[in-house]
Amino acid sequence: MRSRSYHHSAEARGSLSMDMAKDGGGPLDLIKLTTDKLSTDTVSDSVKCSSCGAISLFIGTTRDNFEGKRVVQLEYEAYVPMAESELKKICTEIRARWPSIRHICIHHRLGVVPITEASVIIGISSPHRSDSLEAVKYCIDTLKATVPIWKKEIYESEEPCWKENKECLWTGSGAGAKHADL
Amino acid sequence: MRSRSYHHSAEARGSLSMDMAKDGGGPLDLIKLTTDKLSTDTVSDSVKCSSCGAISLFIGTTRDNFEGKRVVQLEYEAYVPMAESELKKICTEIRARWPSIRHICIHHRLGVVPITEASVIIGISSPHRSDSLEAVKYCIDTLKATVPIWKKEIYESEEPCWKENKECLWTGSGAGAKHADL
Repeated sequence: MRSRSYHHSAEARGSLSMDMAKDGGGPLDLIKLTTDKLSTDTVSDSVKCSSCGAISLFIGTTRDNFEGKRVVQLEYEAYVPMAESELKKICTEIRARWPSIRHICIHHRLGVVPITEASVIIGISSPHRSDSLEAVKYCIDTLKATVPIWKKEIYESEEPCWKENKECLWTGSGAGAKHADL
Repeated sequence: MRSRSYHHSAEARGSLSMDMAKDGGGPLDLIKLTTDKLSTDTVSDSVKCSSCGAISLFIGTTRDNFEGKRVVQLEYEAYVPMAESELKKICTEIRARWPSIRHICIHHRLGVVPITEASVIIGISSPHRSDSLEAVKYCIDTLKATVPIWKKEIYESEEPCWKENKECLWTGSGAGAKHADL
């Protein structure tokens, strides 16, 4: 299972020219699940637009500890079609709650993520700051509650978590545990 | 006045080695006022640490409109010593409210800021996400309410704002108007 490779990219409005859409066209929902390293500048640039005064970002990074145990590696796994579908639902919910939101970008990394690197980056732009600040919090909270992406923690001095850690029930039973404790 | 150049940099714990301080040392308060272009990756990297699972960022960008008028250029001006002092106060307040916060970085640009470029970038790291998300919102809200940094908007079809716009009282009277309407 550890050698499986995931790479999927989806843009909700991929047929639009990015530059036209960003300034003159409709709002963009940009969703990507990838094994590549994530870039904060890429996410930030993708939601930039000339009519917006605010971009709010959240970066979930891989911690070196969990419940007092030293984590040496994390690995993320997803049921990709359902994860994308749930992420699109979150975008729709955000637009219903904060209609002034301009662009939404959610990049989630899969596979092995080294310590301190980003597992998820969310960027949201809006004309005024309160909307994007609130929407980013809603986005990461909802992502963790609803999107089928899980993590496996590998500890320094124990058996790998997918065998022993109580949060990784999914590896044995397929049940959906929450994917990360940021 | 428009040709004045500002460049100031201050790091609250500049004597510490950045790498040591980021992971093994105390928390960092990194404050910079500069005429240079701001970088999201620089701010993000400066607050990264291996014990944190969350980095929250806010980017204030220059909008092309204000109250229906087309803005062609913005310029920021600060009373630098007082601005730095107020920014340090905000860091202290954040640490009192959210003791688990690890690093805080606030970069504010001065001088001319082209449309869509960042005028301010705030980055805050914490072990868990709620602290940094709340602290970033508090930081930008408080910055706008207390820090003596002002903006001058220059419109496409009107006299420059520092002569006519009601928000720019400071250019005539020295009174402190709020610096930006993000």
